[in-house]
Amino acid sequence: MPRLIATAAAADFTSPGRRDYWIRLRHTSVAAAHLIPVTVLVGPEARPGEGLVAFGACHGNEYEGPVAIKHLLREIRTAHVRGRIILVPLLNVAAFRVGARESTGDDGVNLNRVFVDGAGTTPAMAGITSRIVEFVRQVIWPNVHIAIDVHSGGEVARFIHRTSFFTHEDPAISARRERMARWFGTPVVLSSTNSPGGSISRGLYQEADDLGKDWIGTELGFGASTDVRGVRYARHGILAAAIQRGQLHGAVEPICHHADGTQRLLRNRASVTAPYRGHYEPLVDCGQFVSAGQTVGFLHDFNRIDEEPLGVVAGLNGVLVSQAWGARVEQGQMIVMVAAA
Amino acid sequence: MPRLIATAAAADFTSPGRRDYWIRLRHTSVAAAHLIPVTVLVGPEARPGEGLVAFGACHGNEYEGPVAIKHLLREIRTAHVRGRIILVPLLNVAAFRVGARESTGDDGVNLNRVFVDGAGTTPAMAGITSRIVEFVRQVIWPNVHIAIDVHSGGEVARFIHRTSFFTHEDPAISARRERMARWFGTPVVLSSTNSPGGSISRGLYQEADDLGKDWIGTELGFGASTDVRGVRYARHGILAAAIQRGQLHGAVEPICHHADGTQRLLRNRASVTAPYRGHYEPLVDCGQFVSAGQTVGFLHDFNRIDEEPLGVVAGLNGVLVSQAWGARVEQGQMIVMVAAA
Amino acid sequence: MPRLIATAAAADFTSPGRRDYWIRLRHTSVAAAHLIPVTVLVGPEARPGEGLVAFGACHGNEYEGPVAIKHLLREIRTAHVRGRIILVPLLNVAAFRVGARESTGDDGVNLNRVFVDGAGTTPAMAGITSRIVEFVRQVIWPNVHIAIDVHSGGEVARFIHRTSFFTHEDPAISARRERMARWFGTPVVLSSTNSPGGSISRGLYQEADDLGKDWIGTELGFGASTDVRGVRYARHGILAAAIQRGQLHGAVEPICHHADGTQRLLRNRASVTAPYRGHYEPLVDCGQFVSAGQTVGFLHDFNRIDEEPLGVVAGLNGVLVSQAWGARVEQGQMIVMVAAA
Amino acid sequence: MPRLIATAAAADFTSPGRRDYWIRLRHTSVAAAHLIPVTVLVGPEARPGEGLVAFGACHGNEYEGPVAIKHLLREIRTAHVRGRIILVPLLNVAAFRVGARESTGDDGVNLNRVFVDGAGTTPAMAGITSRIVEFVRQVIWPNVHIAIDVHSGGEVARFIHRTSFFTHEDPAISARRERMARWFGTPVVLSSTNSPGGSISRGLYQEADDLGKDWIGTELGFGASTDVRGVRYARHGILAAAIQRGQLHGAVEPICHHADGTQRLLRNRASVTAPYRGHYEPLVDCGQFVSAGQTVGFLHDFNRIDEEPLGVVAGLNGVLVSQAWGARVEQGQMIVMVAAA
Amino acid sequence: MPRLIATAAAADFTSPGRRDYWIRLRHTSVAAAHLIPVTVLVGPEARPGEGLVAFGACHGNEYEGPVAIKHLLREIRTAHVRGRIILVPLLNVAAFRVGARESTGDDGVNLNRVFVDGAGTTPAMAGITSRIVEFVRQVIWPNVHIAIDVHSGGEVARFIHRTSFFTHEDPAISARRERMARWFGTPVVLSSTNSPGGSISRGLYQEADDLGKDWIGTELGFGASTDVRGVRYARHGILAAAIQRGQLHGAVEPICHHADGTQRLLRNRASVTAPYRGHYEPLVDCGQFVSAGQTVGFLHDFNRIDEEPLGVVAGLNGVLVSQAWGARVEQGQMIVMVAAA
Amino acid sequence: MPRLIATAAAADFTSPGRRDYWIRLRHTSVAAAHLIPVTVLVGPEARPGEGLVAFGACHGNEYEGPVAIKHLLREIRTAHVRGRIILVPLLNVAAFRVGARESTGDDGVNLNRVFVDGAGTTPAMAGITSRIVEFVRQVIWPNVHIAIDVHSGGEVARFIHRTSFFTHEDPAISARRERMARWFGTPVVLSSTNSPGGSISRGLYQEADDLGKDWIGTELGFGASTDVRGVRYARHGILAAAIQRGQLHGAVEPICHHADGTQRLLRNRASVTAPYRGHYEPLVDCGQFVSAGQTVGFLHDFNRIDEEPLGVVAGLNGVLVSQAWGARVEQGQMIVMVAAA
Repeated sequence: MPRLIATAAAADFTSPGRRDYWIRLRHTSVAAAHLIPVTVLVGPEARPGEGLVAFGACHGNEYEGPVAIKHLLREIRTAHVRGRIILVPLLNVAAFRVGARESTGDDGVNLNRVFVDGAGTTPAMAGITSRIVEFVRQVIWPNVHIAIDVHSGGEVARFIHRTSFFTHEDPAISARRERMARWFGTPVVLSSTNSPGGSISRGLYQEADDLGKDWIGTELGFGASTDVRGVRYARHGILAAAIQRGQLHGAVEPICHHADGTQRLLRNRASVTAPYRGHYEPLVDCGQFVSAGQTVGFLHDFNRIDEEPLGVVAGLNGVLVSQAWGARVEQGQMIVMVAAA
Repeated sequence: MPRLIATAAAADFTSPGRRDYWIRLRHTSVAAAHLIPVTVLVGPEARPGEGLVAFGACHGNEYEGPVAIKHLLREIRTAHVRGRIILVPLLNVAAFRVGARESTGDDGVNLNRVFVDGAGTTPAMAGITSRIVEFVRQVIWPNVHIAIDVHSGGEVARFIHRTSFFTHEDPAISARRERMARWFGTPVVLSSTNSPGGSISRGLYQEADDLGKDWIGTELGFGASTDVRGVRYARHGILAAAIQRGQLHGAVEPICHHADGTQRLLRNRASVTAPYRGHYEPLVDCGQFVSAGQTVGFLHDFNRIDEEPLGVVAGLNGVLVSQAWGARVEQGQMIVMVAAA
Repeated sequence: MPRLIATAAAADFTSPGRRDYWIRLRHTSVAAAHLIPVTVLVGPEARPGEGLVAFGACHGNEYEGPVAIKHLLREIRTAHVRGRIILVPLLNVAAFRVGARESTGDDGVNLNRVFVDGAGTTPAMAGITSRIVEFVRQVIWPNVHIAIDVHSGGEVARFIHRTSFFTHEDPAISARRERMARWFGTPVVLSSTNSPGGSISRGLYQEADDLGKDWIGTELGFGASTDVRGVRYARHGILAAAIQRGQLHGAVEPICHHADGTQRLLRNRASVTAPYRGHYEPLVDCGQFVSAGQTVGFLHDFNRIDEEPLGVVAGLNGVLVSQAWGARVEQGQMIVMVAAA
Repeated sequence: MPRLIATAAAADFTSPGRRDYWIRLRHTSVAAAHLIPVTVLVGPEARPGEGLVAFGACHGNEYEGPVAIKHLLREIRTAHVRGRIILVPLLNVAAFRVGARESTGDDGVNLNRVFVDGAGTTPAMAGITSRIVEFVRQVIWPNVHIAIDVHSGGEVARFIHRTSFFTHEDPAISARRERMARWFGTPVVLSSTNSPGGSISRGLYQEADDLGKDWIGTELGFGASTDVRGVRYARHGILAAAIQRGQLHGAVEPICHHADGTQRLLRNRASVTAPYRGHYEPLVDCGQFVSAGQTVGFLHDFNRIDEEPLGVVAGLNGVLVSQAWGARVEQGQMIVMVAAA
Repeated sequence: MPRLIATAAAADFTSPGRRDYWIRLRHTSVAAAHLIPVTVLVGPEARPGEGLVAFGACHGNEYEGPVAIKHLLREIRTAHVRGRIILVPLLNVAAFRVGARESTGDDGVNLNRVFVDGAGTTPAMAGITSRIVEFVRQVIWPNVHIAIDVHSGGEVARFIHRTSFFTHEDPAISARRERMARWFGTPVVLSSTNSPGGSISRGLYQEADDLGKDWIGTELGFGASTDVRGVRYARHGILAAAIQRGQLHGAVEPICHHADGTQRLLRNRASVTAPYRGHYEPLVDCGQFVSAGQTVGFLHDFNRIDEEPLGVVAGLNGVLVSQAWGARVEQGQMIVMVAAA
Repeated sequence: MPRLIATAAAADFTSPGRRDYWIRLRHTSVAAAHLIPVTVLVGPEARPGEGLVAFGACHGNEYEGPVAIKHLLREIRTAHVRGRIILVPLLNVAAFRVGARESTGDDGVNLNRVFVDGAGTTPAMAGITSRIVEFVRQVIWPNVHIAIDVHSGGEVARFIHRTSFFTHEDPAISARRERMARWFGTPVVLSSTNSPGGSISRGLYQEADDLGKDWIGTELGFGASTDVRGVRYARHGILAAAIQRGQLHGAVEPICHHADGTQRLLRNRASVTAPYRGHYEPLVDCGQFVSAGQTVGFLHDFNRIDEEPLGVVAGLNGVLVSQAWGARVEQGQMIVMVAAA
């Protein structure tokens, strides 16, 4: 049966059963709509305001989320759903269409920065990206208490596979979030504290936490490619969360670094900024241990080919969790990040 | 005599006689101005707050309006003007310069979506398009009670020639609007009801109606071309309205479909959205009658050249009033619209 | 069964039966190929060097050919084929991919100008467009004596539907070509004489004639859209030619202007060139009769909005067969063409 | 020692000594920052809220300021500083990176138009340009009472070298500003009155004056080049202001037109707007005296090559202070400006 | 009377009288032509193979030539013409249309590099630029023995006004060429020797000399602007050459540097190449004397803002005849040229 | 000492010692040059026509070569050189400048396809890329018998690290080439046979072999990044070749897969082409063993989100040596390659 094209307001997030929608957001200019694929699965135990949402393609050049969630569309059986599961394989369809971080053919704004006041409701913030924010606020947030946001790294930075969560003042909440994060099986799990609200830039992750949702983020690939293990981590982590948080029947086993005890929980971070434009050469792969003061990479200036490259030095003892992916780096770019427990 | 370059505030809309202006709106960045051609004709019977304005080029790739109104600049004799006639052959000069729907060389916003609060008066809405809105609000609306807005269809959709008007709770008002619309002579006249104010997107047509103006809109061509009959309809419809509403001396005769009784007044509409990107093949020309359930076109996916095309089915019995013009259609695009009485 | 991906050299144009190929032409730079869909149908009466080829999308923004030939892929039954029929719905796949006249994402050359010496075989003519020429020369020309090349008008010019053929010094050959052209059913059939070989620019149509093929060309639409009647003319004309020239079993009836006797055979042409950049307004639709000296359109210069438009005058008594489609016309552009018997 | 990368909030504008910063403003989308070079020099006599700032590259294609201030970075000795001197050779680093008036790779807004309410603090004004405004407001304005803003003319207009200042109702303030302006040595000094606050567009210069700062602006070159004398004027004017206003020890001598008595103080201005697009030919160089009614240039329309060019006529007796630089001029562009005492 | 649109072959370069043509060169792809304005003036003394041609806009962003020659179109009276004068105000109409050095909207080739074998006559050199070369070869060269080619400097380099000529082994020929060059009145006249034919790149100037024509080139401005004195030099130099070489009746007086004895004849040149990308700051204006070893400019690297700029040193004693105009310079760019007698 | 700017003809490849050049190739249009960094090291045992050249950046977005060779510039001591070593860290400087596979800002041709007849010597092949070919032919080939060409994979494909060589009919030659290839230490070494000369497309690698040079190619990274091990392999492989082939004193030890015996020599290959545009999901990482018939990836069509993805099947038992990197793949793209011994 073909997907039903519907406005957000008309979509049914509460009746039992499965519905596959194209949620239509009006095009800014012509007689057309952006169609966001949204699958709603509601089981007999669903409770108002509770459910699990999994988002792919918050940015349009991150593919592990879309691929993993597209697989789940066929793998999750409606009969097995206990509570509410919402699958959004492509949240930012406008950016996905052009295969770029932002919807460069439309308003070109980073969706993960515009969870701000007035997005999609005030005239000066009427672009498609802001209206996707309004869509999330209008129909997703009221129906879920768990949000999994599958991200990857784009063209700028490479990452060791990781999940992230925000700690909470209530240790029990922190613990259940950490558990969800660990079940993805990634080598690194990163914890941090949500920052207080910034008026001009705020992300989906921050808003989810502001609203008290249990949010899990990831970095599962980079370079606008699809990563073999990244897809596996995403698929497993979403299923595990759905099962363990009571939204889905079934059983899962720990995988990979979670299973073999090599998963690291990290928290403190130190990064290095490129002081000038150049080409970055890493000396250490992501995921390796480095020591404070160790030269972990070089910044080459081919405009001055006979000069020594500049050494890039780790700021603390820890795991190199991220570094520049594209060799060409701009002045001011974060080129190395090290994290420690 | 060359046109006088003047600010909107300095232009004279009330003294008897004719004045040809370039109304200057300051360029957003350099020492330059956008010059909107505005001709004001004031006769001895002009009343405060009353008059007829005709706008061309609300979008920059619609040419029947600019051409027809440019002809009227030379055809309307000042001595024949009774009330107030304002001719704006090129409203959106920034978009017309680049020949695109929106002013892609400037702020790139659709003028017919930004008649919203704060346009041209708040810092975040300071682009040329928003300031054209402010210009209309500042000097056009206070001087007219009738607004004719000559549109065409751009690259995305083709149309049967039509005029449009908003019905009013007062049947007399609806009737005088319908009469104006019919005198253009188009095969189709479309009536509808203005929607309540939307905070983030609102058109010239909606604001004209909100303010109680008698507004007439049109679709008189498409494809960024100039249509032979489209120009004729526009020219005749504007003159007829000016004469019949007491702004101009003279007499007119009904033309074309209005004269021969083949003009249809339609109201209910049903449209079809493309479920995926492909190439559209119409099976029926605009203006033909179709039946609910009839396959009126095909959506071909040349990426899957050996698949059957998808049939596009009419949703009601009526006239096919619009369908995709460019063969390449995007997911979510409105590809067929049928209207019935 | 999926299409077989094969090099041109490996494709089988002679064995009886049907084969659907993606003919691969190596990408100029990366590890990829351009895939041209080619369906070969060979019947029991096929003779060496004889057959009928139908090409769509010689230019990438002309859609009546691709759509009509894609329909024929499913409509022609292999069992009905007597001789050899080659269907190429998308000849210029590189231009079709970007939806432009030329392959603007690749070498950007007009395929219908590079049937010149060395195309695709000398280093300075190694782009994909030149290699498509070489593909035609290598495997299509040796297998056909009839070539139908379905064209449309693009963004620049609109046309009355027409077919074209080259007259030959042998009247019998001219007659069989005229007959094929007439069976498309278009209102106009245009005859002309092939020009002697130009060293720097030569079209598919000219080379087909140089090689003694019976070539039929068309103009069946414009504006990068799909035309209802254009598709019908193409489909019917190809089938009629295949049947009447002994490549296909079956029967056809004359259609439209061919059936009702309103089809005109025209030969002499006179065109008007825009002396400066401006906007073109037609006063007469394509297909109408005009008289020498009649003003058939206006050239408006909105840069000089208060000037009279320039009258565009027909050069002979005849049918207005083509005129500018996009309203914006450049200096030197052909804006009107009139043809007479 | 390498520059210290710091947030605006963390930079120290008050302790004695010299500090060279890269002030980081977060990138709108990726893990990167825009780095603004800011050198702070604080001497023993520095008073709270007082100091002199010199800005280069308010626009990214104006080079006399960046070059002159970069020289001053090495020429001003910390030991000679009495008060507070802040050197910002590149204010608009995002525009300078692309070498354009505006940061066309980022938000593309003209920095000198967005000193408006909410810049950098409201969600709809969160681009880098607006956040540069917020940076100036947060840490520069509170630390200076004198602002020198070195501008040049870009691609659109050429200028006679000039400085500018706003007169004040207090003649003493006007006099000290005029004195600063004169010490640059330029042939022309232009005085004007600040306009009342505009809600949608306001410049650095206007805000500086609104806040009671002594502001000096300049036009020291054009065409995205570096002007020999322009750099000299900027360097000398900044040093002279610093010394004479008590921020720096040392002595300076008048130079050039200031020294030889040929410097003109002008105030009244009259400009000419291009009525249509064309090519501008000047008949008089900038800096020459012209008379009201004198033809000072021609506007050529090469689209109409056999027409007479349009004479461009001076509106008053005075000095031709500016005219179009690029020969191609757009309709509405200011093509000539004459100023008189 | 409107210009006559004609092919090059159809234009009449020999009958007495004046003819204003648009010479049409077929568009590479669509039904359009490039129209080159060519005015032919033939007097009673015209001799076969002799005449004077003046070219403007060999590059599309050089405006002194087009403006000066456009003025001459109205100033030269047919009755005064003795021999043959051909005025081509816009040679490279395709580049002039886009206002760029090369026809970036067409083949993008530098016209002054493609006077090579096969231009416009072999398939791989069929672009409009190559066909302009063929036009010159077909109808201009056979009708002239004197060629004046008015150039300016574009965005990359600024120049002291100069004319250029090739010396010849026959001193009498060198002398008559020098005389023509001197009569323009420029401060500098540069002589050089034509280089032997290069197979892959050759200019109009070189071909003119190869064919034995007396060629005069110029640099009369830069920055895509129009220079007051540049236009004057061009106009005067063309008239003087026409009169003194027997093509036109009349008398001229020496002007400017030619009249006042300050004109310099230079020959030897030394240039400096930028070793890396940066911003160029001149210390000396074009036209000044410099000494070998003198630092005449700086190359700044703002990517390394705290480094000393690199000194740019003159290679010989002489006049600084050219240096970078745009401040941004690329690695390998010629940034300074000094010439000496 | 700064690099010497010299023409290719002027560079000295024979005198003993070290010379660091910028070899200048004239810019196609403006007064500038492309500067190729070339370091020549000549020792006492150098023989005519013999030497080792190492090229980086044949494509402009491959960085392991440039980085490794830039390190070698400082690491190889002139005193240790026995024969002749030529280091070219950036061969395609025009492509490197824009960071793209081809010089998209210049002629945009793939350097590794234009080692064809006439490159850089015929007018139709005069672009910078063709002239780089001519530079290699003019001064590099005559001075070397060993060519190492360090490549990586760009945005389109990912690779297991590998070196490549052409086998020769003389087993001894094959063996010495295999030995050079193995010493890089990569997990895979690929052997193949040079194809006979293609007239329209030919690579550096093919020409090197045609001329009898011992050529080694590599794939050491992808995604326009710099790979940690890729740089190490390149550096080691070049040094090992130089030492073992008698051009450099010193000793080396085997590394990585060469040292530990896990290096595989592969020869037969089978690849899979994408039948339509979609997103590629790998199921197996490069370097893994796969079996013929195994599904190694999926092709997803998000335009048809509810369809099953298409399985991508390995064609033989072997190592998956390459697959699509960017998730978005075009119709016709090679998406998987498997190689076996």
